[in-house]
Amino acid sequence: MPTLEARSQLITSRNHPMVRRVRALQSRSERERTGLFLIEGIRFLSGAVQHRAKIDTVLVAPPLMKSPYGQKLVRQLARSGVRCLDVTPDVLHSAAQTDDPQGVVASVHQDWAALPDVDPTEGLCWLAVSTVQSSGNLGSLARTADAVGAAGLIFLTDGPDPYDPAAVRASMGSVFALRYARVSAGELVAWKRRHGGELVGTSPAAELDYQEHRYRQPGILFMGWERRGLSPDEQALCDVMVRIPMAGRCDSLNLAIAASVLLYEVFNQHRRVGVSEPV
Amino acid sequence: MPTLEARSQLITSRNHPMVRRVRALQSRSERERTGLFLIEGIRFLSGAVQHRAKIDTVLVAPPLMKSPYGQKLVRQLARSGVRCLDVTPDVLHSAAQTDDPQGVVASVHQDWAALPDVDPTEGLCWLAVSTVQSSGNLGSLARTADAVGAAGLIFLTDGPDPYDPAAVRASMGSVFALRYARVSAGELVAWKRRHGGELVGTSPAAELDYQEHRYRQPGILFMGWERRGLSPDEQALCDVMVRIPMAGRCDSLNLAIAASVLLYEVFNQHRRVGVSEPV
Repeated sequence: MPTLEARSQLITSRNHPMVRRVRALQSRSERERTGLFLIEGIRFLSGAVQHRAKIDTVLVAPPLMKSPYGQKLVRQLARSGVRCLDVTPDVLHSAAQTDDPQGVVASVHQDWAALPDVDPTEGLCWLAVSTVQSSGNLGSLARTADAVGAAGLIFLTDGPDPYDPAAVRASMGSVFALRYARVSAGELVAWKRRHGGELVGTSPAAELDYQEHRYRQPGILFMGWERRGLSPDEQALCDVMVRIPMAGRCDSLNLAIAASVLLYEVFNQHRRVGVSEPV
Repeated sequence: MPTLEARSQLITSRNHPMVRRVRALQSRSERERTGLFLIEGIRFLSGAVQHRAKIDTVLVAPPLMKSPYGQKLVRQLARSGVRCLDVTPDVLHSAAQTDDPQGVVASVHQDWAALPDVDPTEGLCWLAVSTVQSSGNLGSLARTADAVGAAGLIFLTDGPDPYDPAAVRASMGSVFALRYARVSAGELVAWKRRHGGELVGTSPAAELDYQEHRYRQPGILFMGWERRGLSPDEQALCDVMVRIPMAGRCDSLNLAIAASVLLYEVFNQHRRVGVSEPV
């Protein structure tokens, strides 16, 4: 008697075209060519489903998939028409980057927003960055942005790839909750102007303390490169520049941490609205 | 005519005992056996000198040491009796972890504080941690702690090694400014009690908002494991538990980021003293 859902024959070769296609997403050029990215583990698969991400292919190694919740999730995906392929543990590990992918690796469609079509009043604020030192940092940043209810991240250069597997992992699933856009500085400013938004830059040399500014919505926080900060050209685009003070010994913060301190200030001001202080 | 300082003959072999001794510090067991750690680059050598760290051995590859400031620093160290050994670029790279050690790799003595002898009123506060997910995170945390003027980090388990080369690099030199101690929870509490300090724990389930608490000095912030937070036993040690609120989508923050948000709250309250609000 057949099972309820049509499941594929077990794939036993690491060279199976579908396995190679998923594994290849560890490389940035392949991610860019296909518009897909790689996720591993049940938490991420669950996040993709919850946020209605478009799943391309799911590779499942049944002997490694011990969680009943994960098994149910895969059955539901297969039933709803998502390509779910059974593979051997060896084949699954050949496509995974982590030691314990919990029996599942999947390819998912990247979701880039076209900024002009986006309403910037959604969410707490946006975060714009030029460069981020590491993918892990970028993922941590996404995680904080999500935690405070920010709408998304805007990348002003081709450098940072939020769909790098290390960034995806460090985001702890926030990759599905946030919107991502890649635009030029000119496009960012045009979008902000059209919607009457505020672009807030940071610089250790700014006079205004980051706690003394009242952050408006729609707002975009603009973080420069660690230690160097925003360039004079970038600063010229900003409506206001703020400074995160330091006690004086250490001369800079990690970018993800500086952005998080600033995001929490915006969040704290926002959640005080109607409680005690006007924002 | 001899130069002012006695400089060694050029070391051309990667197997020279002094080179092997320095290179071995990439391993934790060797760091623990010798009580030394590894630094690379002029910024770090300069930090070590500035904070009067006890330098053991400096390996210098003159053709790679392009900075006049770095050259002067090494000359001064050699003159003051620090062992400075000239090596070939190949030998230097064999001891370095980074691609560009700027011509210098050195071994430096670790500096662990004996907590009972430490006055906890030094600095803004202390930060106590059980586990930290990665060395990079630990270094970023040290960098923020230094930036707000915290006194140091207290480790309650053998897990985190602040002298791991990745932690040292991510600290951007804060490794020299902070005090480090490794003690049991019982020793921490005894120290805190003797000095009338306050141990502040964090938990997503705590009722008190982290911004509603007035942090006392001497204070110790106690961070638990990401997502799991402090154990019930650890919470029982705390004088007060606070919660960092989140907008609801993401259920946790990266540990270094959560600690930094909390450190900035303590710093912000502290720097407002005498300006507007009593703390």
